[in-house]
Amino acid sequence: MPTYDAKTFYNGLVAHGLLVPAGPLGAFGRGAAFDDVLERMDALILRSARGDAVESMTFPPVIDRTIIERTGYMDSFPHLCGTVHSFTGREKDARAIPQRIAAGERWDDLLAMTDVVLNPAACYPLYPTCTGTLPEDGRHVTMLAWVYRQEPSEEPTRLRSFRVREFVRLGLPDTVVAWRDLWLERGLELLISLGLPARAEVAADPFFGKGGKMLAAGQIDQKLKFEVLIPVVSEQDPTACCSFNYHQDKFGQAFAIRTADGQVAHSACLGFGLERVTMALFKTHGFQPASWPQVVRDRLWV
Amino acid sequence: MPTYDAKTFYNGLVAHGLLVPAGPLGAFGRGAAFDDVLERMDALILRSARGDAVESMTFPPVIDRTIIERTGYMDSFPHLCGTVHSFTGREKDARAIPQRIAAGERWDDLLAMTDVVLNPAACYPLYPTCTGTLPEDGRHVTMLAWVYRQEPSEEPTRLRSFRVREFVRLGLPDTVVAWRDLWLERGLELLISLGLPARAEVAADPFFGKGGKMLAAGQIDQKLKFEVLIPVVSEQDPTACCSFNYHQDKFGQAFAIRTADGQVAHSACLGFGLERVTMALFKTHGFQPASWPQVVRDRLWV
Repeated sequence: MPTYDAKTFYNGLVAHGLLVPAGPLGAFGRGAAFDDVLERMDALILRSARGDAVESMTFPPVIDRTIIERTGYMDSFPHLCGTVHSFTGREKDARAIPQRIAAGERWDDLLAMTDVVLNPAACYPLYPTCTGTLPEDGRHVTMLAWVYRQEPSEEPTRLRSFRVREFVRLGLPDTVVAWRDLWLERGLELLISLGLPARAEVAADPFFGKGGKMLAAGQIDQKLKFEVLIPVVSEQDPTACCSFNYHQDKFGQAFAIRTADGQVAHSACLGFGLERVTMALFKTHGFQPASWPQVVRDRLWV
Repeated sequence: MPTYDAKTFYNGLVAHGLLVPAGPLGAFGRGAAFDDVLERMDALILRSARGDAVESMTFPPVIDRTIIERTGYMDSFPHLCGTVHSFTGREKDARAIPQRIAAGERWDDLLAMTDVVLNPAACYPLYPTCTGTLPEDGRHVTMLAWVYRQEPSEEPTRLRSFRVREFVRLGLPDTVVAWRDLWLERGLELLISLGLPARAEVAADPFFGKGGKMLAAGQIDQKLKFEVLIPVVSEQDPTACCSFNYHQDKFGQAFAIRTADGQVAHSACLGFGLERVTMALFKTHGFQPASWPQVVRDRLWV
């Protein structure tokens, strides 16, 4: 029986060169063998979608600030957002920054908010590009993105900056829900085929504050969110490695996206947390990929 | 003879699905064909380094704020830095954020600076991990990183958020300089082999303000920085697609890095701006990779 302990697992990852310790919590470096597995995992996920007509795009780790403003992100998750600020003053004002730094003083009042924030969810930058009328069958897009959540933690699966392989479907409600259901099954099968003790569960987003509890309850009631969970640092509290979200018409409304027959478009997205799935593989099969079960290696080393 | 015009080039990239327009300047999306070329270019660069004993690491787009504080980044480039801020208040304070957003008011004073900033140069997070004594032959590390520079521009090669394939060498001065010289030649040859009109030139960093002019002149005098330039949006003002930087003992001093025989370590780095090299390929050979010269295709589609 495996034992679970966050600190022991983190130390093991570091000792095997899989993680490279770096200052800020949840923003460590990744060693070559870690990223090799992560990239192979991503390629396997893409192969599982090979039969689908899916477009691919890449968006940077920063997105338009108005996206989070227009979608109510700061109502629901004000504690998770990372905004980007910069110095916009003149030369004489700039000198104050190194002076404050040398004095060990704060210097954030010398900066101003820019027009970008760190991307909190891989799919966010897609929606404003879809404003208008969708093609007959809607849209189906995939992206690999670095996302950010301001939740510093020593627990190694609780990253602040991490990669997500995301798929997004926009279109009619039935299309979108059927697609989400298909991927829930496909994602679970994919992870189980790698020997991972994965299971799916209805879930809720980590909404902020007391009001958030009601939002979370509503989300669970309506089964708008599912997660695939795998024990990595705890058996009682397994790690969410994939997330499947049905947004109903939230983004269609926010960005004026319509289906070909003129309805407000619905959308759903799903994301594989690539660092988390990779950690689940190292936890389940050990720190040395060369010793992993052949059936697992055959799926990843193709 | 090619003609050069930033707006026409940007529009061409968009019309061919290579760039996906998104709100903030310098932070657009990349289409599948664009990233396919970018990834092939990155793989070609890595193949050119195959004979070297180089470690690979990955760092997130955000790094420890103290790295830029300790290395004087805010003295030299206060205008380029993107700091990350977040909400750290209580529930009642959080409600003010959506209220301000709804009223079209600023909300940056409701946030506080976090311990991370956007990574301004791919190699920065490496140095603090090297504190102490280096192995006999120093260190040689490569990384692919998203970096950020706060320089909004409509000129398509002037990105704010972009990917760099970076190589870093730490060790004795002679080792580091010889390595930099070898890569300057290798990088230039690699780009010329792709039919790109590339040339190398002594260069200076975009230091801030009047004092910066002197720093830039000193950098040029000492030949501490070289760039490989390719005309993409202008013939007179070609785009810097690679940068080769000899830091002398700057990072060795800042992070207490010593060579095996006890000297302060010197370092150099070089980076290929992957979006810029990719754009240079599209500018030089046209928007449709299927029509590129066979000799170029043979190098990238292996």
